[in-house]
Amino acid sequence: MTALPILEPATDESCCTPAGAPALGADEAKQKALVFKALADPNRLRLLSIIKAESSGESCVCDLTEPLDLGQPTVSHHLKMLVEAGLLHREKRGTWAYYSLVPGALDDVAGLLADL
Amino acid sequence: MTALPILEPATDESCCTPAGAPALGADEAKQKALVFKALADPNRLRLLSIIKAESSGESCVCDLTEPLDLGQPTVSHHLKMLVEAGLLHREKRGTWAYYSLVPGALDDVAGLLADL
Repeated sequence: MTALPILEPATDESCCTPAGAPALGADEAKQKALVFKALADPNRLRLLSIIKAESSGESCVCDLTEPLDLGQPTVSHHLKMLVEAGLLHREKRGTWAYYSLVPGALDDVAGLLADL
Repeated sequence: MTALPILEPATDESCCTPAGAPALGADEAKQKALVFKALADPNRLRLLSIIKAESSGESCVCDLTEPLDLGQPTVSHHLKMLVEAGLLHREKRGTWAYYSLVPGALDDVAGLLADL
């Protein structure tokens, strides 16, 4: 009688076997980190919150200094970071710049987390 | 003949009317910003990505140094920040610490964005 071949249990995991290349590549991780860096500041989160709550869909920079009790150069710096991260759209009209959420941008950030 | 009362159009928006108190309070914004700060680093995003991709649901710290080409103290520092932000769970077993995603934590971050 011939012995049946012994099927060894699959051992696809073991401690101290390096996990291999990360699913998320270095360059892609850098890009994604920039978006989270833009969100990693309380005042920038509050600016997004105010602009999002505006029924007209946009806020004049002149309306954003008082609620945060910050000077206009500081507010403009924070707004610039949010624009560069692709979260806000900026439109200059006359003297003032107006800021609105880029449609779908916050959903896209949520998507980054889902796709990690 | 009496003049009809003139109904003025509602003007609920105008430039340079401060937007009032932000929907997001200062303390809440600080808390939320801490979570985004934990995500605002390419290596931490890659660590989350590796741990998320682990079929066992957890990774030994000893498996995480090689894929990122970082020393163990650096990896441990990044993992600590992710634990403090409530994104990773840490369990010490024997010599090594094992890290797993806190269930629902990434969804909760997505929820922070939706509720801004």
